[in-house]
Amino acid sequence: MAKIVILGGDGFCGWPTSLYLSKQGHDVIIVDNLSRREIDLELEVDSLTPIQPIGTRLETWKQKTGNTIRFENITVGKEYERLLKLLSDERPDTIIHFAEQRAAPYSMKSPTHKRYTVDNNLNSTHDVLAAMVELNLDAHLIHLGTMGVYGYGTAGMQIPEGYLDIKVDVNGTLHDQQVLYPVNPGSVYHLTKTQDQLFFQFYNKNDQVRVTDLHQGIVWGTQTPETELDEKLINRFDYDGDYGTVLNRFLMQSAVEHPLTVHGTGGQTRAFIHITDTCKCIELAVNNPPAKGERVHILNQMTETHRVRDLAKIISDLTGAEIAFVKNPRNEANENDLHVCNDNFLGLGLEPVTLSQGLLKEVTEISTRYAHRSDGSKIPCISLWTNGSDVESEEVIADAA
Amino acid sequence: MAKIVILGGDGFCGWPTSLYLSKQGHDVIIVDNLSRREIDLELEVDSLTPIQPIGTRLETWKQKTGNTIRFENITVGKEYERLLKLLSDERPDTIIHFAEQRAAPYSMKSPTHKRYTVDNNLNSTHDVLAAMVELNLDAHLIHLGTMGVYGYGTAGMQIPEGYLDIKVDVNGTLHDQQVLYPVNPGSVYHLTKTQDQLFFQFYNKNDQVRVTDLHQGIVWGTQTPETELDEKLINRFDYDGDYGTVLNRFLMQSAVEHPLTVHGTGGQTRAFIHITDTCKCIELAVNNPPAKGERVHILNQMTETHRVRDLAKIISDLTGAEIAFVKNPRNEANENDLHVCNDNFLGLGLEPVTLSQGLLKEVTEISTRYAHRSDGSKIPCISLWTNGSDVESEEVIADAA
Repeated sequence: MAKIVILGGDGFCGWPTSLYLSKQGHDVIIVDNLSRREIDLELEVDSLTPIQPIGTRLETWKQKTGNTIRFENITVGKEYERLLKLLSDERPDTIIHFAEQRAAPYSMKSPTHKRYTVDNNLNSTHDVLAAMVELNLDAHLIHLGTMGVYGYGTAGMQIPEGYLDIKVDVNGTLHDQQVLYPVNPGSVYHLTKTQDQLFFQFYNKNDQVRVTDLHQGIVWGTQTPETELDEKLINRFDYDGDYGTVLNRFLMQSAVEHPLTVHGTGGQTRAFIHITDTCKCIELAVNNPPAKGERVHILNQMTETHRVRDLAKIISDLTGAEIAFVKNPRNEANENDLHVCNDNFLGLGLEPVTLSQGLLKEVTEISTRYAHRSDGSKIPCISLWTNGSDVESEEVIADAA
Repeated sequence: MAKIVILGGDGFCGWPTSLYLSKQGHDVIIVDNLSRREIDLELEVDSLTPIQPIGTRLETWKQKTGNTIRFENITVGKEYERLLKLLSDERPDTIIHFAEQRAAPYSMKSPTHKRYTVDNNLNSTHDVLAAMVELNLDAHLIHLGTMGVYGYGTAGMQIPEGYLDIKVDVNGTLHDQQVLYPVNPGSVYHLTKTQDQLFFQFYNKNDQVRVTDLHQGIVWGTQTPETELDEKLINRFDYDGDYGTVLNRFLMQSAVEHPLTVHGTGGQTRAFIHITDTCKCIELAVNNPPAKGERVHILNQMTETHRVRDLAKIISDLTGAEIAFVKNPRNEANENDLHVCNDNFLGLGLEPVTLSQGLLKEVTEISTRYAHRSDGSKIPCISLWTNGSDVESEEVIADAA
């Protein structure tokens, strides 16, 4: 079993991943500065589900399973010496890096939020890489990226797993070359993930750092078998305009009998994955590291695609909620196809949880059950993509990756 | 005439550009935190030429020409509010951005230097863009990038001006698409320039910021007609292992009768431009901004290419210096071709200063004249590209861009 440091292990993806890997017998150490909880305070919102302080979470996990997960409060990207000491003392086999600001609308709220996202995300990724090189630490770095690096304007194209084969003219002869797939990010958040890719490419080439970059779709679902063991282990459920993903926001709207607000035509296609599959994909990545000297592994971490208006229809059929079409605050095409290659994870044995299997449980066990904890004023979103937009107060579709 | 803010206007390229544009009648404001001078203190080196404090420089310029250049000491990338206030008060037509750490060897010296380069360069570029958007300031942003973003491993290829035409398979049909030319940076410094390109692509697309990104070669030469007006206006000449470019280091070695140290076979081909042509290219960019909504202009700012061993030969022939071949501390191919497209600047009327025209003047008026100010111990370089390298103390070839 491996020793695994999980940066950002208190967050929506990090927490269930930490529990899942601990349950598999790995020695898990969470590093987190609790910034996601601080952002709740700033935005004056709270998880719909009653998440517990990290100490309570870890103590409950110990009581339920006998497993110890250690915790270090370190701001990755700022407290380099503390990160270095931890990695030097522990010398983990694997480092999983969730320690980035992960909401596209939040990254576009204001110049302050743009600057925070850039400063936090880029310095955190770079500090991890610089520390690994400084320590000669041959750990496997697993990073959570997003399929959104490619933008959603690539109508009809199949999104490949990270690389593009091109032909280059060398003195009149065409030569085959493989390059990072061209990017077209749609927010400052997505932009930082495209810049992360360049960090990985460089440190992989220059120092042979072994990296897997998981390009995740929108994560849906709240609970995993591990977080369900006790209510004190419950995972976050975000429904506000900045951090709530499209599916959570539809679920919340239907629970409080608000119409499901679809942006534009709702013709935007998005890729989805259930939170339990996120955990399983990360385990597959842990168990299948690149060899020393091998280029960065880039895998698409998603299991199905849906158009936003079709999602609204599914939830409307399930709950009886109405659907309202509103203006789109994003600077994006209204309609797009999305064909995604996820052969790598399927080849490694992933058996996905589908929306049709899991959605009813979300309605009954999460959005309806905890609806009394919701704040109706937090459903609209006021983050606008450009200064010139005339949209004043509407929701947006957030990425969970 | 334009109002022009020059970020990093006290540096090696920024200072002569500021004078040149002031002489053309533009209203020039220099913003600089004097970090380049601080790095001299850190490295315990000094410009071979006796550069004056910025106040003396500006007062001398005023005396000689009657032109006023204003100066603001602001750390771009950290002091956002002060940058914002300046741009809000002045609303310049053009912003020229030199405010980045620009030496590849310095960026690889230690984890601290890697982290400084990433933090400084990325936050400075992003702060300028965020401020322009916040202020609805439709200025033309001119950035100094480097041709080194592509790496030097692309044997035989012609380096294009920023973009690559590719064919993309959309549902079985090949479609033409133009993407940023794939990058392959060779140092953390070069890496940050590849990440800057993504900032520009995003803010150009999302907010229609007008950007010209100048991919510069290695700048040589010290003086311009403006800096020659008075010794108090003299430009920097760096010869240390971190900031000295290959040509300056050969000049300095010959002046102190040290052999010219060539790395590996010296078969690396590099692109060069004289400092007076840097100024002229920037003027051409100032006068030819992209239209609103037009994509980022990317231009190669270089005028000739040479193999390093051929450069050594030219200087050896001129000065009688010996040539010594030493191990290469860089993680790079020993031999490479370099074919560069610079049609854009030639089309705009650039008439380059060639090495054969200007080199003798460098020998007589700079390296020989000021040789008594040199510190022989600063010629070797100790920045190694990877932990595993067995090179202990040798020089490297720095970029001046």
